[in-house]
Amino acid sequence: MSARRRVVVVGGVAAGMSAASRARRLDPDLDITVYERSHFCSYSACGLPYHVAGLIPDHEALVVRTPEEFAADGVTVNVHHEVMAINVVERTLRVRNMAGGRSRTEPWDALVIAAGARPASSGIPGKSLPGVFTLRTIEDAQAIRAWIAARDCREAVVIGAGYIGLEMADAFRARDLATTVVERADHVLPLVDPDVADDIAAELAAKGIDVVCGVTVDAIAGKSRVQRVLAGGASIAADIVVIGVGVRPDTTLAAAARLPLGPDDGIVVDEGMRTGVDGVWAAGDCCQTRHLLHGGPSYVPLGTTANKQGRVAGANVAGGDERFAGVLGTAVVKVCELEVGRTGLGEQEAANAGFDVVSASVTHLSRAGYYPGHEQLRVKLLAERGSGRLLGGQIVGREGVAKRVDVIAAALHAGATAAELEGYDLSYAPPFAPVWDPVLIAARKTAEAATARARLREAV
Amino acid sequence: MSARRRVVVVGGVAAGMSAASRARRLDPDLDITVYERSHFCSYSACGLPYHVAGLIPDHEALVVRTPEEFAADGVTVNVHHEVMAINVVERTLRVRNMAGGRSRTEPWDALVIAAGARPASSGIPGKSLPGVFTLRTIEDAQAIRAWIAARDCREAVVIGAGYIGLEMADAFRARDLATTVVERADHVLPLVDPDVADDIAAELAAKGIDVVCGVTVDAIAGKSRVQRVLAGGASIAADIVVIGVGVRPDTTLAAAARLPLGPDDGIVVDEGMRTGVDGVWAAGDCCQTRHLLHGGPSYVPLGTTANKQGRVAGANVAGGDERFAGVLGTAVVKVCELEVGRTGLGEQEAANAGFDVVSASVTHLSRAGYYPGHEQLRVKLLAERGSGRLLGGQIVGREGVAKRVDVIAAALHAGATAAELEGYDLSYAPPFAPVWDPVLIAARKTAEAATARARLREAV
Repeated sequence: MSARRRVVVVGGVAAGMSAASRARRLDPDLDITVYERSHFCSYSACGLPYHVAGLIPDHEALVVRTPEEFAADGVTVNVHHEVMAINVVERTLRVRNMAGGRSRTEPWDALVIAAGARPASSGIPGKSLPGVFTLRTIEDAQAIRAWIAARDCREAVVIGAGYIGLEMADAFRARDLATTVVERADHVLPLVDPDVADDIAAELAAKGIDVVCGVTVDAIAGKSRVQRVLAGGASIAADIVVIGVGVRPDTTLAAAARLPLGPDDGIVVDEGMRTGVDGVWAAGDCCQTRHLLHGGPSYVPLGTTANKQGRVAGANVAGGDERFAGVLGTAVVKVCELEVGRTGLGEQEAANAGFDVVSASVTHLSRAGYYPGHEQLRVKLLAERGSGRLLGGQIVGREGVAKRVDVIAAALHAGATAAELEGYDLSYAPPFAPVWDPVLIAARKTAEAATARARLREAV
Repeated sequence: MSARRRVVVVGGVAAGMSAASRARRLDPDLDITVYERSHFCSYSACGLPYHVAGLIPDHEALVVRTPEEFAADGVTVNVHHEVMAINVVERTLRVRNMAGGRSRTEPWDALVIAAGARPASSGIPGKSLPGVFTLRTIEDAQAIRAWIAARDCREAVVIGAGYIGLEMADAFRARDLATTVVERADHVLPLVDPDVADDIAAELAAKGIDVVCGVTVDAIAGKSRVQRVLAGGASIAADIVVIGVGVRPDTTLAAAARLPLGPDDGIVVDEGMRTGVDGVWAAGDCCQTRHLLHGGPSYVPLGTTANKQGRVAGANVAGGDERFAGVLGTAVVKVCELEVGRTGLGEQEAANAGFDVVSASVTHLSRAGYYPGHEQLRVKLLAERGSGRLLGGQIVGREGVAKRVDVIAAALHAGATAAELEGYDLSYAPPFAPVWDPVLIAARKTAEAATARARLREAV
């Protein structure tokens, strides 16, 4: 009797559970075990700010599938288990039940590392004070809710104005806390260009959220609990602080096991999510990935990517030959009543990647101008000078942003020029768009900018 | 002194005014005159049903630019003028002021025919009875509103369940009329597949709109005004009837001038909107166009296409060399609270074009399942068996349909396979989409169907 092939997955959120599920579906004979450090598996981390805001009162709504449900499918999920070391030569790992259990050694034939990311907050003095939080897990969200519920919290500070930072500022506003956002870069949401960020800053100001940009946090201070944030010479009162200054790939295990890491410290994987060590795959926020526009490595830790990579890893663990193509960094975030989307390269990113960039912005409407409920949309497109090849897009407005960004993302996947995008046959009816969709008008202006400026250059 | 080059445009709505405006912008020296049969130029025909519904009370809101505004730009727009004949040898036309004026002959150096379409209603007995309308112009909408306002209308019949027919049924419902839709085909909205149409029929039924499919109207009957519609042996009471059985290219002038017409009777044009007769361009609903998926001629009279073609014609009249690539037939329509979008080929169209088609449908959510306000969406994708190349898509749901259809349209422009679409890096945040967008899941299922069934075939 031959033993069943043993697959172990480290990390039970997006990438890990996608890998486990996919492997299970493709090969019913695999013995699949998942270890997850938190108390929950298969939850939507992206829903956590809305749980804090109170919009989603029950944290269980964020759990897609429970360990019991996975067990019924033949996938063993051990939550509250920490994997402490991986041995890729002996094909074992050390794991410990965090509820006081002793560590034990478990064998594997195939390993999927989906260890996720950890908050990049290590440098801030005072970050361990009670009342200072990061937000990665359901437990984090519960702790924030409990802290607010137990105290007369009035003032909140969010450190970092990225996706999570802005969502958390909005969540605190929903909880009636006077909220200040402190961002090190010179504008909010560093993943969009400064001109687009201006619209976000205006929305935050209109909603009474204070924003301080271009300032580094010196320390978080307080006696037995957080009381203030010291930044750029100012002291900002704080009953609660959330640090959302981005994440780093959690590669503690991978580094110790000598798996190759990339320039952003993510685990290096090929298109099949293979690490280069036989029998070891990796997926999700612990990996670096390939950017489709410049072809180089990129670190874009997002749930969509984690799910896709997990599926690919799971398929290949089960003997498949699937590939993850790469990312464009497409993302969307709701900031109060504003929707902000981006895809591809920003101006600075594109310049860094060696592109000669032109851009054009248009402000137009989400629906026909005579149709009730229309809102203004600003669409910015970036293209390569001369060729007009699209490099990225950013949209900000009060409705209709997310899927318009996806149209631009699709055009980027196609390698389209701005002129080609202008010719796209997009849908139109007065309740949904103007007859010239803002994306098409932006494409036209970008095409003109790409060629006109190119001509000007030739003439010089 | 050389005379200014004289450009005459026949038809002053979407294509015509786009052509005139574009030519004006590119060449300030042109002498540009537009003749338009109705009292209005540059209006949104797609907004007319909402004017009838009462959602847009003022018809002037539908007018993008008035003749006075065009005059200020140096474009002469003569509304209520009918062009009676074109002479492409002498480069003249006969035109008549419909307010009692005598006809006169006008010369042109360049002619743009943007005569639009006419309702395809000629065959129905009784169609001239008072109370029977079609809907192409602002005057049509005003006449319908006046008819309802002057009478105790209770029952309405809409003949034809295409885009306009369904929008008009919704408009009559908004006016509290008991409404019946009669459609000759065996399902509503013949431009979507029968299974998608089932969802539309359910919405119409839920909103109290009666639908009779698979039935031809024998006659519209009444004494001094419309009183009933006779169809399939039944007599349907009607205080007002709108005929929306589609349109035909208005090629009276073009045919008389011996311009080549295509299989759908549309004027044959090349990519530059040239008719083949020197100095004569055509654009908009009077033309046939090229379908990007099968490469053959296609007649898809839509405002977006008319605007794009008009711009190209205008640029080329002014000495440019622009091209209109072709159409996918992308469209979206709001039916009561339902949004219905489609792009590319339907099942029957694809089969007719010689494709071996597979399809897959998924029902999923418009936002994360835990996020308030999510709605169900049904996405159907069509692909070529074996290759998996995408051929079309249809979406039906209560929000987020239009721009998701545009993502599919963009994938069609890219010539993408279903598997490639599955890998698209689309945006995700809980308020806007589930982590796996319904479009991506549909792409996955379609890719599986395309290859699995292909394998099955090889095995047979």
